[in-house]
Amino acid sequence: MKKLLIRGATILTMEGPDAIIDIGEILIEDGWITHVGLPGSASGSFDMDEIIEADGQVAMPGFVNCHTHASMTLLRGYADDLPLMQWLSEKIWPFEGKMTSEDIYWGAMLACLEMIKSGTTCFGDMYDFMHSVARAVEQTGMRAMLSRGMIGIAPNADNALAAAEDLARTWNGKADGRITVMLGPHAPYTCPPEYLDKVMNLAAKLKLGINIHVAETLTEVADIKKQYGQTPVKHLDSLGLFKFPVLAAHCVHLDEEELEILAQKAMGIAYNPQSNMKLASGIAPVAKLIDLGATVGIGTDGTASNNNLDMLEELRVGSFLQKVATMNPEAVPAYRALQMATIDGALCMGLGDRVGLIKEGMRGDIILIDTREPHMCPQHNLVANIAYAANASDVSTVIIDGKVIMQDRLVLTIDEERVMYEVRTRAARLAGEK
Amino acid sequence: MKKLLIRGATILTMEGPDAIIDIGEILIEDGWITHVGLPGSASGSFDMDEIIEADGQVAMPGFVNCHTHASMTLLRGYADDLPLMQWLSEKIWPFEGKMTSEDIYWGAMLACLEMIKSGTTCFGDMYDFMHSVARAVEQTGMRAMLSRGMIGIAPNADNALAAAEDLARTWNGKADGRITVMLGPHAPYTCPPEYLDKVMNLAAKLKLGINIHVAETLTEVADIKKQYGQTPVKHLDSLGLFKFPVLAAHCVHLDEEELEILAQKAMGIAYNPQSNMKLASGIAPVAKLIDLGATVGIGTDGTASNNNLDMLEELRVGSFLQKVATMNPEAVPAYRALQMATIDGALCMGLGDRVGLIKEGMRGDIILIDTREPHMCPQHNLVANIAYAANASDVSTVIIDGKVIMQDRLVLTIDEERVMYEVRTRAARLAGEK
Repeated sequence: MKKLLIRGATILTMEGPDAIIDIGEILIEDGWITHVGLPGSASGSFDMDEIIEADGQVAMPGFVNCHTHASMTLLRGYADDLPLMQWLSEKIWPFEGKMTSEDIYWGAMLACLEMIKSGTTCFGDMYDFMHSVARAVEQTGMRAMLSRGMIGIAPNADNALAAAEDLARTWNGKADGRITVMLGPHAPYTCPPEYLDKVMNLAAKLKLGINIHVAETLTEVADIKKQYGQTPVKHLDSLGLFKFPVLAAHCVHLDEEELEILAQKAMGIAYNPQSNMKLASGIAPVAKLIDLGATVGIGTDGTASNNNLDMLEELRVGSFLQKVATMNPEAVPAYRALQMATIDGALCMGLGDRVGLIKEGMRGDIILIDTREPHMCPQHNLVANIAYAANASDVSTVIIDGKVIMQDRLVLTIDEERVMYEVRTRAARLAGEK
Repeated sequence: MKKLLIRGATILTMEGPDAIIDIGEILIEDGWITHVGLPGSASGSFDMDEIIEADGQVAMPGFVNCHTHASMTLLRGYADDLPLMQWLSEKIWPFEGKMTSEDIYWGAMLACLEMIKSGTTCFGDMYDFMHSVARAVEQTGMRAMLSRGMIGIAPNADNALAAAEDLARTWNGKADGRITVMLGPHAPYTCPPEYLDKVMNLAAKLKLGINIHVAETLTEVADIKKQYGQTPVKHLDSLGLFKFPVLAAHCVHLDEEELEILAQKAMGIAYNPQSNMKLASGIAPVAKLIDLGATVGIGTDGTASNNNLDMLEELRVGSFLQKVATMNPEAVPAYRALQMATIDGALCMGLGDRVGLIKEGMRGDIILIDTREPHMCPQHNLVANIAYAANASDVSTVIIDGKVIMQDRLVLTIDEERVMYEVRTRAARLAGEK
């Protein structure tokens, strides 16, 4: 049995705003958190395999990025500040059309590297060539929920279903249980009802949840209304989609009825504030969704519309954006923002039974944040300092599934230079620069 | 004569979107930039006093934070997620009421430390006990425009005018010219017309500009309309304020007439996106102001409403917020956001003749950003990578007025531990924690 002890840290358990242990210790045995308590309270501290001295740091659950397209790191900065359709048709799609399975692998490796260095321990992904992403997750030690993106109106729509089934059979529950799979029909406007029927049949057969983009733009809402006479969420509900565990991404433009459906029936909603801002899609009614009891997590979306995978930045902007959108400074306070970025994100992906809290019985997905930097001084309020003032480089140490993946900012599972070299070279080729 | 050469860096001069030198060198002599060119083009490189090898880094003008209250670092995290009046009357004002001149000094020292570490070389400040802030600026090597905040309806209103005059006579043009002074009447709702008359008389006498908060909240707009029968900007214009060089902070709620007045008559507008979001004040019509030809800079505001002084975060959110507010992804593109955070901020404070560009004849306020981190890979677009993906800790080196203030993240002018110790101790006393 592998025993890892973290001691000396302030523990932000995320079990509640006041569930903070000023100086405490966390014992992880074979990847499971088996004890959280005061200094010296963990039994058998003489026979630890590894001890992390974490004085001056905060231990909290790793961030959960519940919506991204990891391999789009290859497109970071390739197309910005453009109208949506020009962005997609002239830049994103032609570039993506040239991407190979190996490109996707290296893009995902870079994303994992960036996520680890900014404190993200778990992410939800939707893309093509998902075996490549799974390989990156397995090798880097990350945790991920993976979905093969499926476009029902594309010529290869049935192949995509087969690929999704193959992904699930090959990878669901693999990498020591760190990989889970959901089905990824892209969106109601790219997946007609008959295709969504096939997806639901497959979901029933494989007992999988469904990860889908919904109501991201006003154009989508208008198109769905015109085509089906209903709003997007209502349309999906009529088709029976919410009989399955659904993670709905974006949900920017919703009427009252849709808010209620999502709050009552969706497993979770992925709020992508910076992507929605940058693409000028709109502001998701997250404060309302939360008030109605919905589970809302936070996603960065891909780096073509962000342009990084920094969850601290994302949760901060996500909170501030809700305040200004509702003209209510009390909306999405600091603790709630951290909750969305940890346990609520895990719940959105059906992983709330294993990650998102520092609590006995959970898997050991824990980050240490160094709070001794000028921008977190003084410490009137630890939660506010992390949510509203910290930055990605303050994350010093990352533990996933009980394994130390980054220590003192050195990532132990990845050859950083090799990954950046591969991505630079491949990105230049794909962009036609060389 | 002191000669400093920076070589090997990619130079983002900010003289235009394409004014980038792939690998170049910058010569600084006695604080002046005297040469910007290709490798080996600076004359006399054999007799440099100091050479900075900047391979793999980007050299750009230091960030200009054109609106803050530096010493409010003491209040970071002290009061968050509260309605404005409760925030002010129950938390901010009582805390500030206890602050001494020495508290202000240490708060400003921490702010300077944080700003230097995040690449800000120049800031615009308004607060009380400004001699203390000036001392911090002088000692840390920063550049600043300082204003003594004046509340016309306060009992000490005339003392404030005297203090402002004293500040100007003591510090304007001092610290090797790094300190300039403007007058700081707080806002139209706290400074009645007869008081603003006195301010304008003083401005005329001392030949100073005026730094003022305007149209920050809907409450302010309603109050000014009720009291004076005009909107805030129109009211100030009627009083003749814009005959002076005016830096107007916030400008969130403006009608068409006010937009025109500001565009035609204000020296500059300080856009504070995160403060306006966090306090739920609203979204300033910055895209419109820019279209009308206004000069708009970026400010963080104080750390009680932000909660850090990170200009990279601020310019990014500032850009994204304009895109979503106008539903136009082309609004405030990456280069414009960087421009607002450098040369345009300098112009807003009357400093555009000396800082904000890397150009012969300007003072040497230059930062180096290390772009070799995973979150800036690949490099399809350098400007987008900095504006949309970089973070504060990527700033490796800071040069102000030709002097190296931070090298490889070591701040040479400040005892970091001492400053943080003083602020922690003083903040606890002021909060009544001990």
